[in-house]
Amino acid sequence: MKNGLIEQADLNFLIYDWLNIEDFLIKNNSEIDRETIDAFLDLSHKLARDHFLPHFKKSDQIEPYLEDGQVRVLKEIAQALKRYTELGMFSAGFSESLGGMGFPSTIANAAYTILATANGSTIGYSLLTVANARLISKFGSEEQIKQFALPQINGKWFGTMCLSEPQAGSGLGDIKTKATFEEKDELGDCYRLKGNKMWISGGDQDISENIIHLVLAKAPNKDGILTAGTAGISLFIVPKFLRDGRKNDVTVAGLNHKMGNRGISNCLLNFGEGEGAKGWLVGELGHGLRQMFMMMNEARIGVGFGGAAVAYRGHKLAVNYAKERLQGRDIYKRDDKVIPIIEHSDVKRMLLASKSYAEGSLALCLYCSKLVDEVNNVDSQKLLSLLTPVAKTFPAEFGLLANDLAIQVHGGYGYTRDFDVEQLYRDNRLNPIHEGTTGIQSLDLLGRKIIGDSGESLKIFTKRVLKTCDQAIQINLKSDASYLLEVMKNLERVCDILINSKDNNTLANSSAFLTGFGHIVVGWLWLDMAIVALSQKDEDQYVQSFLNGKIATSRYFFECELPKADMLLNFVAKKSDVVSSVKTEFF
Amino acid sequence: MKNGLIEQADLNFLIYDWLNIEDFLIKNNSEIDRETIDAFLDLSHKLARDHFLPHFKKSDQIEPYLEDGQVRVLKEIAQALKRYTELGMFSAGFSESLGGMGFPSTIANAAYTILATANGSTIGYSLLTVANARLISKFGSEEQIKQFALPQINGKWFGTMCLSEPQAGSGLGDIKTKATFEEKDELGDCYRLKGNKMWISGGDQDISENIIHLVLAKAPNKDGILTAGTAGISLFIVPKFLRDGRKNDVTVAGLNHKMGNRGISNCLLNFGEGEGAKGWLVGELGHGLRQMFMMMNEARIGVGFGGAAVAYRGHKLAVNYAKERLQGRDIYKRDDKVIPIIEHSDVKRMLLASKSYAEGSLALCLYCSKLVDEVNNVDSQKLLSLLTPVAKTFPAEFGLLANDLAIQVHGGYGYTRDFDVEQLYRDNRLNPIHEGTTGIQSLDLLGRKIIGDSGESLKIFTKRVLKTCDQAIQINLKSDASYLLEVMKNLERVCDILINSKDNNTLANSSAFLTGFGHIVVGWLWLDMAIVALSQKDEDQYVQSFLNGKIATSRYFFECELPKADMLLNFVAKKSDVVSSVKTEFF
Repeated sequence: MKNGLIEQADLNFLIYDWLNIEDFLIKNNSEIDRETIDAFLDLSHKLARDHFLPHFKKSDQIEPYLEDGQVRVLKEIAQALKRYTELGMFSAGFSESLGGMGFPSTIANAAYTILATANGSTIGYSLLTVANARLISKFGSEEQIKQFALPQINGKWFGTMCLSEPQAGSGLGDIKTKATFEEKDELGDCYRLKGNKMWISGGDQDISENIIHLVLAKAPNKDGILTAGTAGISLFIVPKFLRDGRKNDVTVAGLNHKMGNRGISNCLLNFGEGEGAKGWLVGELGHGLRQMFMMMNEARIGVGFGGAAVAYRGHKLAVNYAKERLQGRDIYKRDDKVIPIIEHSDVKRMLLASKSYAEGSLALCLYCSKLVDEVNNVDSQKLLSLLTPVAKTFPAEFGLLANDLAIQVHGGYGYTRDFDVEQLYRDNRLNPIHEGTTGIQSLDLLGRKIIGDSGESLKIFTKRVLKTCDQAIQINLKSDASYLLEVMKNLERVCDILINSKDNNTLANSSAFLTGFGHIVVGWLWLDMAIVALSQKDEDQYVQSFLNGKIATSRYFFECELPKADMLLNFVAKKSDVVSSVKTEFF
Repeated sequence: MKNGLIEQADLNFLIYDWLNIEDFLIKNNSEIDRETIDAFLDLSHKLARDHFLPHFKKSDQIEPYLEDGQVRVLKEIAQALKRYTELGMFSAGFSESLGGMGFPSTIANAAYTILATANGSTIGYSLLTVANARLISKFGSEEQIKQFALPQINGKWFGTMCLSEPQAGSGLGDIKTKATFEEKDELGDCYRLKGNKMWISGGDQDISENIIHLVLAKAPNKDGILTAGTAGISLFIVPKFLRDGRKNDVTVAGLNHKMGNRGISNCLLNFGEGEGAKGWLVGELGHGLRQMFMMMNEARIGVGFGGAAVAYRGHKLAVNYAKERLQGRDIYKRDDKVIPIIEHSDVKRMLLASKSYAEGSLALCLYCSKLVDEVNNVDSQKLLSLLTPVAKTFPAEFGLLANDLAIQVHGGYGYTRDFDVEQLYRDNRLNPIHEGTTGIQSLDLLGRKIIGDSGESLKIFTKRVLKTCDQAIQINLKSDASYLLEVMKNLERVCDILINSKDNNTLANSSAFLTGFGHIVVGWLWLDMAIVALSQKDEDQYVQSFLNGKIATSRYFFECELPKADMLLNFVAKKSDVVSSVKTEFF
């Protein structure tokens, strides 16, 4: 599509042809069928095109601002979300018992992605609200669910996640927000909170009637002392407005002015400048981080979807531009015909690379969503845990690279604000940072999910990759399959070394491991998609070109990207002290 | 330094210890000595700190704007450049016969870099003016030099380069601006120009009394027909104001609103909306592109310096932040001490990588400037020609990556406009685009400088690398030297294949070649610098740490970066059609 929104053909290929969501639904006796899904995705497309895309630029130009302690947001954002609410979209992924539409995560996220290609910051309000409501639904009491989750599921209220503090970003163990028990009421144990929370997306706005903050804080023990580290962290529900309509003791201390992603406000919130903000404990004391982590895993895949969506739109806009922009001649023909720049080899390379990143990211995130849906499959849940840091990081890092390439394809025009690609680039730059930086994800992957798990989840991963390779060998993708098998052998070798290492440098180069492993994962998915594409010969020229594009991109990934994996893994296996031996004063 | 300006220690190391500029000056009987240079660089530092850095943010926030056909620029920019003019800085690199200070290019560029770390867009006005004046000095008549070059050398007037047109960016052969002969006068052959020029940096401003545009245009032959392609291009001097004080027929049709680098205006200029803009031919008809190219090579190294400077400042700001920001604990010690984030391995990795890119870029550009200075050394001139596309591209591409890492080190703070690193990132994103995109540079390198040159310049390069390896083997850098020798052997092998190829895919993957070759060049320079650092043991703890930092960064580059070179070169040698075989309709 000209506007760069995600194409139905791409989603159909991924959801129906590749992930076989129909089979899954039938096996699970779901009442949802393809017709229902198509209608829902179609609705999402229209909403994206008519209500989210039109203010893409305006929401970058006119940032949220503070007026008498209240954050004001562009009215177009409020209008888009109002429409979103009216259509019940907040409830898409919730069960019918919670008033939801009951779509599997795969489909709810596909719809989310459509809207995120149109306007990543406007749909961000929904991401947080849904995550908040899901957490309360899972760990909250019946009364808390009724009072705080349901109004978010129906989109009347919005939600936030309040984790970081100015002095504690990645190191949550050091948060200082303090919760003091006050009384028990029908909503549970009520506390008074005092502390400052930083980087709160949607921390305040004038869109929804109320805002439900989920706040990590520490409750002092009977001696009045805060438990050190993460074990002392509990989770509290802190509404902006209390049931009696009075404002809770939550103040916007300031707004962060970001490089991109500007439509969604980002606040420094002070809890308890006065008597303390009222907050109700969720579940048990000291369980806060565990509860939040369950949530954060979902949020991390959500970040992945966001990165994939923004990368996808940049890629599509670059393709459109490259097909239309006439410049230069064929360097071999040397005739006088000026050609569209897409015919220049280096432009083609940039488009192949960005396609491999963007569509590879999208496939990765949808694959993970399918794993989320396979809730009763133990292997799937283990694999999901292994792949989550990759699903967060690959779309963030390589999606950003896709946006970089989209600018480059546009040349000077891409560097101007007359085109959308520079904004997409700025928007996507957030994704390697929030919900756990790339460095944090790499420690999670190598330290927790590989070494800490003694390679158990890795075995499940390997089994699935081998299955794909078996299929590939049978249908003309033999050399790619052989290559991937080789890479997998090396991965196994390297992981064996790392799992059995007692060395202090084992984790020192974990981000190189994440990049290498991520490339193996995405390479595998591309091969898996190429198998589907190859087995689907179509007489329709347009459809066949679409399939050929998938096959060509898989080949590109295998020739130009996958070789990075071995290079990086071999480096990590050396447990080199090239980084760790460097002293602070050398800088 | 806290402000991230380039440190004297770095420049001293590069200029005196590594490049031995003093030896060079003595051999060339120059009157310039170290004392003079030190004073000049010190002056540049003060100017950078007191007049360029203070409006760094403001020049991003308040863009140039158009008012009644006149571009208005932030007054702080004008004030900084006024001071720059008063100190005679425009003339630094010009010979005394032209009223210049007579500094070698190495030193003039070192000073430029100091100012570019402080404010890349303000100093941009100088880059263009100096380039313009140098071109006129080289190809213009005596009267043209006096009339148009000297006022730029003394900084009274500024200059521009008008190459691109809306429909012709990288493909200059297709420019349509038309020059019609009018009369001969004391300034030479006077023409009337009509056409539109796009992307003109400094195309209009209210800082200098006059603006001298150097404009590429085509003069019709006697049948009134424009010669097709680049052979028909000539170069014209088109002043904003004519000698009689009247305004020439040059109109600002619009301003481009850029993602970064906003302090310098970027204009669409219409030449000849009325009777035609008066312009004087430089040299002979049809020589325009050749003349401009001589200039462009200098400008390309200038872009490299800009990229290096912006990367350098981002790196230094990240180092400062990482030393001060306390977060998390040592993952192996597991004690309760919160540490500065620079002690986390992944942060150290990011700082090492950005140091290797930023300081490697700076070394590369200064090395090339030294080659410029070795004007009578044929080998040096050939090597300069070979290295120019690398000096333009490595600092642009990897300097940008350094700026990306600087944001990442800052975490969420780096994504806000309260810190400088996000602006540096936006500023540097221009560099892979202007003065020939990375794709264009890669065709220049592989097509013209390697294949077109039958590998002659490459031999000179190889000779110098081998010399470095010889020295390295003697002083405890044997394994790096052996590795580099291996890589060089592979480079030779790959180039042999490419030079002798008749294949249409030879140039198809040239950008991978450029990246691989660039890494070899920078790896070589790091090794060369490590030799100097290793041979300079110092009792002063601070100095020794500085030297150790250089050695550690060289090691980092060899372990973590150089392996990319073989991977990329091996891919290029395959002459794969993985990219070129992809059809437009696949996208």
